[in-house]
Amino acid sequence: MKLWQKENTVTSEKIERFTVGKDREMDLHLAEFDVLGNIAHATMLATIGLLTSDDLKALTEELKSIYAQVQKGEFVIEDGVEDVHSQVELLLTRKLGDTGKKIHSGRSRNDQVLVDMKLYTRARLFDVATATEKLFNVLASKSEEHKNDLLPGYTHLQIAMPSSFGLWFGAYAEALIDDIIQINAAYRLANRNPLGSGAGYGSSFPLNRQLTTDLLAFEGMHHNVVYAQMSRGRTEQAALTAISSLAATVSRLAMDVCLYNSQNFSFIILPDDLTTGSSIMPHKKNPDVAELLRAKTNRMKALPMEITMVLSNLPSGYHRDMQLLKEILMPAFDEILDCLDIAAFMLENMKVKQDLLEDPKYDLLFSVERVNELVINGVPFRDAYRQAGAEIADGTYVAPRDLKHTHEGSIGNLQTAEISARMQQELAAFGYEKVQRALDKLIS
Amino acid sequence: MKLWQKENTVTSEKIERFTVGKDREMDLHLAEFDVLGNIAHATMLATIGLLTSDDLKALTEELKSIYAQVQKGEFVIEDGVEDVHSQVELLLTRKLGDTGKKIHSGRSRNDQVLVDMKLYTRARLFDVATATEKLFNVLASKSEEHKNDLLPGYTHLQIAMPSSFGLWFGAYAEALIDDIIQINAAYRLANRNPLGSGAGYGSSFPLNRQLTTDLLAFEGMHHNVVYAQMSRGRTEQAALTAISSLAATVSRLAMDVCLYNSQNFSFIILPDDLTTGSSIMPHKKNPDVAELLRAKTNRMKALPMEITMVLSNLPSGYHRDMQLLKEILMPAFDEILDCLDIAAFMLENMKVKQDLLEDPKYDLLFSVERVNELVINGVPFRDAYRQAGAEIADGTYVAPRDLKHTHEGSIGNLQTAEISARMQQELAAFGYEKVQRALDKLIS
Amino acid sequence: MKLWQKENTVTSEKIERFTVGKDREMDLHLAEFDVLGNIAHATMLATIGLLTSDDLKALTEELKSIYAQVQKGEFVIEDGVEDVHSQVELLLTRKLGDTGKKIHSGRSRNDQVLVDMKLYTRARLFDVATATEKLFNVLASKSEEHKNDLLPGYTHLQIAMPSSFGLWFGAYAEALIDDIIQINAAYRLANRNPLGSGAGYGSSFPLNRQLTTDLLAFEGMHHNVVYAQMSRGRTEQAALTAISSLAATVSRLAMDVCLYNSQNFSFIILPDDLTTGSSIMPHKKNPDVAELLRAKTNRMKALPMEITMVLSNLPSGYHRDMQLLKEILMPAFDEILDCLDIAAFMLENMKVKQDLLEDPKYDLLFSVERVNELVINGVPFRDAYRQAGAEIADGTYVAPRDLKHTHEGSIGNLQTAEISARMQQELAAFGYEKVQRALDKLIS
Amino acid sequence: MKLWQKENTVTSEKIERFTVGKDREMDLHLAEFDVLGNIAHATMLATIGLLTSDDLKALTEELKSIYAQVQKGEFVIEDGVEDVHSQVELLLTRKLGDTGKKIHSGRSRNDQVLVDMKLYTRARLFDVATATEKLFNVLASKSEEHKNDLLPGYTHLQIAMPSSFGLWFGAYAEALIDDIIQINAAYRLANRNPLGSGAGYGSSFPLNRQLTTDLLAFEGMHHNVVYAQMSRGRTEQAALTAISSLAATVSRLAMDVCLYNSQNFSFIILPDDLTTGSSIMPHKKNPDVAELLRAKTNRMKALPMEITMVLSNLPSGYHRDMQLLKEILMPAFDEILDCLDIAAFMLENMKVKQDLLEDPKYDLLFSVERVNELVINGVPFRDAYRQAGAEIADGTYVAPRDLKHTHEGSIGNLQTAEISARMQQELAAFGYEKVQRALDKLIS
Repeated sequence: MKLWQKENTVTSEKIERFTVGKDREMDLHLAEFDVLGNIAHATMLATIGLLTSDDLKALTEELKSIYAQVQKGEFVIEDGVEDVHSQVELLLTRKLGDTGKKIHSGRSRNDQVLVDMKLYTRARLFDVATATEKLFNVLASKSEEHKNDLLPGYTHLQIAMPSSFGLWFGAYAEALIDDIIQINAAYRLANRNPLGSGAGYGSSFPLNRQLTTDLLAFEGMHHNVVYAQMSRGRTEQAALTAISSLAATVSRLAMDVCLYNSQNFSFIILPDDLTTGSSIMPHKKNPDVAELLRAKTNRMKALPMEITMVLSNLPSGYHRDMQLLKEILMPAFDEILDCLDIAAFMLENMKVKQDLLEDPKYDLLFSVERVNELVINGVPFRDAYRQAGAEIADGTYVAPRDLKHTHEGSIGNLQTAEISARMQQELAAFGYEKVQRALDKLIS
Repeated sequence: MKLWQKENTVTSEKIERFTVGKDREMDLHLAEFDVLGNIAHATMLATIGLLTSDDLKALTEELKSIYAQVQKGEFVIEDGVEDVHSQVELLLTRKLGDTGKKIHSGRSRNDQVLVDMKLYTRARLFDVATATEKLFNVLASKSEEHKNDLLPGYTHLQIAMPSSFGLWFGAYAEALIDDIIQINAAYRLANRNPLGSGAGYGSSFPLNRQLTTDLLAFEGMHHNVVYAQMSRGRTEQAALTAISSLAATVSRLAMDVCLYNSQNFSFIILPDDLTTGSSIMPHKKNPDVAELLRAKTNRMKALPMEITMVLSNLPSGYHRDMQLLKEILMPAFDEILDCLDIAAFMLENMKVKQDLLEDPKYDLLFSVERVNELVINGVPFRDAYRQAGAEIADGTYVAPRDLKHTHEGSIGNLQTAEISARMQQELAAFGYEKVQRALDKLIS
Repeated sequence: MKLWQKENTVTSEKIERFTVGKDREMDLHLAEFDVLGNIAHATMLATIGLLTSDDLKALTEELKSIYAQVQKGEFVIEDGVEDVHSQVELLLTRKLGDTGKKIHSGRSRNDQVLVDMKLYTRARLFDVATATEKLFNVLASKSEEHKNDLLPGYTHLQIAMPSSFGLWFGAYAEALIDDIIQINAAYRLANRNPLGSGAGYGSSFPLNRQLTTDLLAFEGMHHNVVYAQMSRGRTEQAALTAISSLAATVSRLAMDVCLYNSQNFSFIILPDDLTTGSSIMPHKKNPDVAELLRAKTNRMKALPMEITMVLSNLPSGYHRDMQLLKEILMPAFDEILDCLDIAAFMLENMKVKQDLLEDPKYDLLFSVERVNELVINGVPFRDAYRQAGAEIADGTYVAPRDLKHTHEGSIGNLQTAEISARMQQELAAFGYEKVQRALDKLIS
Repeated sequence: MKLWQKENTVTSEKIERFTVGKDREMDLHLAEFDVLGNIAHATMLATIGLLTSDDLKALTEELKSIYAQVQKGEFVIEDGVEDVHSQVELLLTRKLGDTGKKIHSGRSRNDQVLVDMKLYTRARLFDVATATEKLFNVLASKSEEHKNDLLPGYTHLQIAMPSSFGLWFGAYAEALIDDIIQINAAYRLANRNPLGSGAGYGSSFPLNRQLTTDLLAFEGMHHNVVYAQMSRGRTEQAALTAISSLAATVSRLAMDVCLYNSQNFSFIILPDDLTTGSSIMPHKKNPDVAELLRAKTNRMKALPMEITMVLSNLPSGYHRDMQLLKEILMPAFDEILDCLDIAAFMLENMKVKQDLLEDPKYDLLFSVERVNELVINGVPFRDAYRQAGAEIADGTYVAPRDLKHTHEGSIGNLQTAEISARMQQELAAFGYEKVQRALDKLIS
């Protein structure tokens, strides 16, 4: 059963399979949001006389019952039903007859998909933010725990200056703040109401779009109906761009872990759980988890391109091409959440080696300290630099191992509290508790 | 059971799920090729004294029986078995005991995966070539069928000069020849034997790599064992690059179809099977199949980037990251084959409109003909151009509708035979019949 | 002269050319910001006793004079001088001798480049926001001007429902608000002080990083010094991602213009200035400007990938690879500013056709209106849909051309004021006036 | 002066700058090929009566003189002249009057650009193949030179099995063979004659396209004129795809060099010429050249995406967008040639460390040798694997340092001769000497 099906249409099975693809599977992710959108739309229709208050009461009751099915995992899209929207409408019509048929007034499947996708994306982006916060907390706590464990700092993969595990963990913690800022920008793009835009050209019914905006707790509406439609794809693009940026942070962390786990660095110890052996080399303990984490997050960096490929040079107005966006976006949320979880698990179970800098091969890490000693004793910087270079060349250099880094963000002053406060502030900007309260109210 | 599993290893379920991912599902695609690789490897081991002739006989018999299972769709990777290679070895060991254990001598899982992937990729690329030939045949036949049906030719989306459906269909046919050239380059990269490279550093056994190369009908071997390993990912990259180029051809065709189906062009008629209606607009016949074909093929253009993302800046040597390449590559073969099939189906069922150029709005298409008339009558080209422009400006221009295009590849001389001959020649370069015969012999 | 050059180093010319590349040319863009960073750093050094107040006075005076040179376009990087930082230090040392040498205390070229890049990127992103506002104003004004000029609305490139030029222009105006949100996220990543992070591992000097943060009017600092370094590339990535999103908006607009300019649509008229002719077709007026606008903005969508390619799988810590980021980022600012300017110019000079919907071929645009009429008269939506479909099929359908779209964002209620207010609000979030005042104060 | 300029056209300067962009600069690369294409076209026109033999003689003479100017670097595109094609025609007309005007008969600027681009791309791809051969020779020779210098082999960045510099250099040599195969596929796409396709719809003149195909030594023609036009962009795409694949090989080599140069690996020694110091760390010798080589080649991997972005979803037929392809393609040739040259220079000047495997930390590299010893003595592989593992665990393992790798492509049998023979065979497939002879004959 398709909403648009005409009597004379025969759709061959091959075409059916090709056009439906994974869409029904994807649509299950939208079920709860479709119900919420339906309640908001019905509530609004009642205020403009397109539903009676009895209609509204019946529809709302039935929609809440469908919502309960979704929550219990019992909602299915029946064979032959095209999508989640048709399924919900079918359930309503089965139960309520003509009343069920009335709910599609003043909207199109286009704005119905749009509002579902906005609600879905908004919710999942907040999930990502929450998982990011969890990883942040692990990193911040590891940073404090290991603030005194020194680590060689590299530039150009050459040993450069003393660093610490405190700094290293803390760096990735702070990186996640910038990721949250980008996730929030995507969240704001998702947090706009497209309902009422119909097929992209609005409706001749006197819809009250502000009302559905408020009921669904959107920050505001996409005013222009053509733009509401045009936001399809671009919301997904923004979400995937933010996710891909977060993935890049995790992939870089994983690369460091793989490198530091090599015998040639040997800075960390991965537990057996996180390593595997070889089919021919009995001595191997390979960092497969870190490698797969790196690979999966690296792969995610191509996701925004997939959206770009689909959308490029499409004239304005809806095209069926946009259906494919769902199967690009939706699995990405599962993947990033999985990767964030595994990254946190890996860090929690990883051990760091101590006293790494006692090894004489790291003596040169302290050459800048030597330069600075000279500067503090009054030698101009460029001259001090030359003098230290000469000492190294003639073998008289002695590494000054007594570190006194005290400024903001340095080894001796990690500012974990300040960094954590910033993270909390950026998370608060989502205002998701308010959204959650509004949706709870709508459905209760 | 994992080949490398040590007694003290406890792998948590979460990590198991993360590391295995879709790999077991992907590995089923490799089963038949793993058996072939095993037979070739065992045959070679027997020649260098690492298997007795009885061992070889028993192993070959058992492997053929596994192959038969695979062909009947009865082969499964059992719960707790890590991959297809372990499963095959498990079946052998279960049946043959110590003899089964001997077959892994002189190889590593690395070169086992590699040879399976090479055999798989080679076979699937030939499938793609075959499906491309089928689409080519539809296009070539449509081109001949409609060689006299004129079509406005556009440049800059402005009406430009007369074209024909013969030219339009024929253009996409010829495009597929260039795609076949690129597929063949990828095929040649896949057609190299990596077996014997072990974990990327060879073996101290006196392997006879030329023998397995011949048995598996490879064009030759990857000589250097480090490069054999390094070819992992790059073979996949080459395959996906070729596929993405082919996808670009199909997507462009689909874009033309969507445009030509618009009421503003109205050059073609899509059957009801290939269109859908709207949930609110009762008059719509939307070209959803062409749109999804466009979207799917456009999306495929991002595939090579996914591989690039995973491989970028990995130092030489195997990394677990490479496992992910399978799930990038393998579904792409199904997708492109599906798209080629649907494209052929769409073209076969599409009708073209006739007498399109009778519409006076297309009069200006013939302005170059007017210029050329003048040139033939002795007016220098630049002057003829100005004169025709003046005629158009002052309204005295009369469209000379009598087309006399006769040169190679023009409206009146499509050269379908020459184009078809080229396609056959490029397909012959694969030499796949010889490959097929060798594999059949190995397994029979 | 290179800061790090040792006596025994001979750098061949070939290597020099390869390593310097376009870097000196790019560095000129940084000159004004390098001076600002120097003043802030020197001011801070004086507060911790690494410069005397006389030193500071002399340095500041000289730096202001260099700034004036930059403003007058007279600043050059001399032959043999490696980069802008060396040039500025050379000028200081030439004039002030040992005092000039002291200014590099407590910093590295790494954090010097970083702070210059942050200041540069922050400033240029605000330029982009300003140019976006200008394009927005053109679109908003065109939207109001043409609010009564109807336009066919398409879905699937099929005529669908009535739209208007008011809606079409307004849609792109509102799109730019979402672009500004993404630009602002990038701006916030740029608006963090990395100064004091040295080579990525801080300094043993008791730097006051909050002071330079305040002097340079950053929103805050990158606390962790390792992250400050790690932000290199990622700031550029965020900026290019935002720019590429904006470019996508412009490219879609350009695609519409190219299509609407085709004789088969013929919705708009481009002035002669914006079209070109053909070398062989005397009748052509090609929309070359719109096409090049489309091409240039489409090309920009690959920019974030370039950064990703360079950064992928680099372990943490500085690598010389990052030098290349400048020549990816910097020309992109010029390009997008140019494209925004040309887009505004094109829209200002474009004319729209009137009374387009009088053409009977657009009758079906009103079929939803017919459905809605029936609904208002009490027919359930799904039945009304079927009835209208039947009328179309049997030829009794009459297009109800009297449009009464009144809801928010529809043809009759464009909400240009609301949209403009949102744009102003998003622009205000940059707080750039405050930044500008602080920098002016620093240099005056 | 523009060929298509009409009297009433006034093009503003802003638009001029935007539309011309870097095109005139790019066009200089085409000058020599434009002359060749002109001679071939004129020769053909004379055979079909559109030029007299006197015309042809005069034109050919003049074109040869222009070619000589190009060779001497004296050819310029004059101010106000739009492109190289206009400039050449202008020179002819200036000298020969009406005869000069006749040469544009039977062609359009579209197929003129196309044929120039094909000739240019074909020539530059062969330059790339030649530079690749040079790098191959350095690698092959280094491989032989260091065949006895052992190197730890890694998998998962974990020490795995013995490798050698012979294997490592040889691996990259063999990699270049696969690159040549892909370059050759692109070369074949470039090696097709589009001349005679006009603006993409052919000509009413009885052109002899086979004649120009032969004169310009193309492998054959693009038969279908619509496809000839459609090959614009796709030829560039194929070229950049091949170049990007080659770049990936070089970038991986550069990554290895950067890693092996780290003190934690310390496998190689880079000469001072190829390293730089630090502005604050007097002990640094950074591998900047290898890093920039890595960055530049990595960046090139995004190039195919730029073309894809421009072409995606453009309907068939020429669009001005394609002008931009030149500035994507042309600088890429210079860049890859530069990178190949620097890579060869770097390898030639790099030293490798000897006796690396004497370090006890590499003992475990030989664990597979121990397993194989047991296998040779009759222990089934899986049992031998467990026994060696047990020896490592209880400390009784003794590394069997006597390597006996003899099979094809292993440490003891590099097969450099076989690999070099394959490279020569792939290079011969270009058949460029024949092309060169034909072009020399045309111009002499």
